[in-house]
Amino acid sequence: MKEWISDIVGLGYAQSIQIDSILYDGRSAFQHIQIATNPAFGRMLILDDAVQTTEADEFAYHEMLVHPALVTHPHPLRVLIIGGGDGGTLEEVLKHPVEHVTIVEIDREVVEISRKFLSSICDRAFDDRRVRLLIEDGIEFVRRTQERFDVILVDSTDPKGPGAALFAAEFFAACARALTDDGLLVAQSGSYIFQANLTERVVGHLGALFPEVATYWAAVPAYPGVVWSFTAGSKRHDPRTLAAQQIARRLQSVPTRYYTPPIHTAAFVLPPRPIDK
Amino acid sequence: MKEWISDIVGLGYAQSIQIDSILYDGRSAFQHIQIATNPAFGRMLILDDAVQTTEADEFAYHEMLVHPALVTHPHPLRVLIIGGGDGGTLEEVLKHPVEHVTIVEIDREVVEISRKFLSSICDRAFDDRRVRLLIEDGIEFVRRTQERFDVILVDSTDPKGPGAALFAAEFFAACARALTDDGLLVAQSGSYIFQANLTERVVGHLGALFPEVATYWAAVPAYPGVVWSFTAGSKRHDPRTLAAQQIARRLQSVPTRYYTPPIHTAAFVLPPRPIDK
Repeated sequence: MKEWISDIVGLGYAQSIQIDSILYDGRSAFQHIQIATNPAFGRMLILDDAVQTTEADEFAYHEMLVHPALVTHPHPLRVLIIGGGDGGTLEEVLKHPVEHVTIVEIDREVVEISRKFLSSICDRAFDDRRVRLLIEDGIEFVRRTQERFDVILVDSTDPKGPGAALFAAEFFAACARALTDDGLLVAQSGSYIFQANLTERVVGHLGALFPEVATYWAAVPAYPGVVWSFTAGSKRHDPRTLAAQQIARRLQSVPTRYYTPPIHTAAFVLPPRPIDK
Repeated sequence: MKEWISDIVGLGYAQSIQIDSILYDGRSAFQHIQIATNPAFGRMLILDDAVQTTEADEFAYHEMLVHPALVTHPHPLRVLIIGGGDGGTLEEVLKHPVEHVTIVEIDREVVEISRKFLSSICDRAFDDRRVRLLIEDGIEFVRRTQERFDVILVDSTDPKGPGAALFAAEFFAACARALTDDGLLVAQSGSYIFQANLTERVVGHLGALFPEVATYWAAVPAYPGVVWSFTAGSKRHDPRTLAAQQIARRLQSVPTRYYTPPIHTAAFVLPPRPIDK
């Protein structure tokens, strides 16, 4: 079988990834779930026809969602992950000396299928005794919770299907309430070039809630347009002002492939967008 | 008409750009030349089915090919451009107080069609009295010339068709001979993520000729993988060591949209490649 999976993002722009074989194909209560293979990316998790993560480049996305926030907060002990059922974000968080991680994933099958087919991504993260896995709606969880977290990471899908509400103002406001007084939140905020409206929507929502808001980027080749955006909202600590030595000290016992002190600093220098649609 | 032009670059990876209308379609002695339109990118120059430049994002590519070298050299007076028949590189060079620019383009029709259909890119650059336009093979020109240039810019197409020889060791060696004792060269060196072999080939060739070799990147949305690479070889001046103030001083009378002091510094911080093929 030689098929291509195409993701049309911008106005008249598409990225296509070839599919060599399909290892799993099924429908959960929430979405269409596939595990497929590509010669360059290895095994890939595909939800509703959009590539979510791949064996080859998951480290870029997951490290850059997690480490800028975990290193910026001076002493993060309690972390909340919304989404992230593939376990890649969880694994990066657990590299830090955190005390507790809650991960709220709406779709149990995403966790089960990722653990079965993408064990290199989530490894044994879900078995770590610091982890509480909740299979429920993340929006409901943050609305109801009385707990407070030092860092919240929003590891959502595209803004369609079950992921759509994770880009709404109400959700981010509930997250801000669930943060400690010096807490910070990072959300993936779409293709920096080809989903500029989405990125700017997240920036707008966080700007209404946090004194410090900063977008940064990482090269995630399996995602449309490669230049992927993340947006941080922080009550006190500004990730843009971290010195290289501070970052290096915090990384001493945190093995990374993508995230380094120079990458942290350079990630906040964003290229201008030629296309603002 | 609604068609897509697709460029398959990596192993099982393609980027596609929709074509709304075709304004020009012809064959020169060297290649298939088209001018087409896209809702996001505007008018596009397409050579042998690969998008070469677009009205919307040409500034990103051309500024980043030109300004890092022109700013790194302390006093560039004589500049040579190989290729670049669309005139975008020429226009950026002419923003600097250079005395002379030679541009060597093999295909007269690329210049003529660009001047006719992409006048926003090349503007009146070709009419500047500092410019000498030569319609001939750039490889032959650098092999024969007795002139010396402070900066050489290699604005090539993909390594196929007339552009293939512009990635060979012999060509770069001839360029090195045509540089002054403190001259420097920059070549576009392909999609940083999806043409890693090409980028590393250029790095290898320049590494054998220059004491300072550095690859940097720019976000060029119309090019496959967006993260585009440029590689600089320098006999003396290292572009990585420029201070922000030095760059700002040199840009005082050079209007730019993409290139800034923070962009210069961050451009040399390259993300790790997940795919080395």
